[in-house]
Amino acid sequence: MEAYDQENVFAKILRGELPCHKIYEDDANFAIMDIMPRGEGHCLVIPKAPVRNLLDASDDVLVKLYPAIAKVARAAKSAFNADGLTIQQFNEAAGGQIVFHMHVHVIPRFEGVKLRPHTGEMEDNDILAAGAEKIRQALAVTS
Amino acid sequence: MEAYDQENVFAKILRGELPCHKIYEDDANFAIMDIMPRGEGHCLVIPKAPVRNLLDASDDVLVKLYPAIAKVARAAKSAFNADGLTIQQFNEAAGGQIVFHMHVHVIPRFEGVKLRPHTGEMEDNDILAAGAEKIRQALAVTS
Repeated sequence: MEAYDQENVFAKILRGELPCHKIYEDDANFAIMDIMPRGEGHCLVIPKAPVRNLLDASDDVLVKLYPAIAKVARAAKSAFNADGLTIQQFNEAAGGQIVFHMHVHVIPRFEGVKLRPHTGEMEDNDILAAGAEKIRQALAVTS
Repeated sequence: MEAYDQENVFAKILRGELPCHKIYEDDANFAIMDIMPRGEGHCLVIPKAPVRNLLDASDDVLVKLYPAIAKVARAAKSAFNADGLTIQQFNEAAGGQIVFHMHVHVIPRFEGVKLRPHTGEMEDNDILAAGAEKIRQALAVTS
């Protein structure tokens, strides 16, 4: 496995060098809207540790990550009144990974609505901002 | 959300009422081969607790689950000499869930090989048994 690259997009977002629509943060993790959503409310939960993916993540990182995924997933489902959720996490290019900082896709799902392709079209910024606000409000209510 | 159904397939496997190709077990989790694999070495990591999915799973269940996913994923990748891994976890029917006991799909991935459809064809029992043995051997080496 290749070494962790400090210049990946999520590392830059973590350092404040790139903008994002942040919806959640705790000591070990943060969550943002996916800018190429596969469905309404698609967001990402990301450990702050410099971890490439599940193959090099320590148990300490993973143990702190899963409760954050659950918290964000429940809020996203509530915020968008979704019928379900699909959780995906890609490891290495063959596994579907494009940005090489570990991240977990949280995708609200609706009866009869298929997922759009992975890394399809860039979403309108206003729609992302509105979606982020809805999830932040749901997190404030449920936490 | 509906209540947990004690008669789901994974509950029956946990109680020993149905057979499975087991590859891993700890106090809180077990892992088995998916009998309708979306790719070579496709396996499932399952918490023993009676949990429907991510929406009703306690943090205690999740905290114990993620290290087990990592352990099985690394062993499956090694056993099949895979190039990557795709991890999926479906919540409620709209999210892709078919068996309503929480389970995490661990799918070894290979350059240029697409995933087969979810719940496609039943795999040959001998192939599943051989795959389970390979992953068990990889777990014995790495743990």
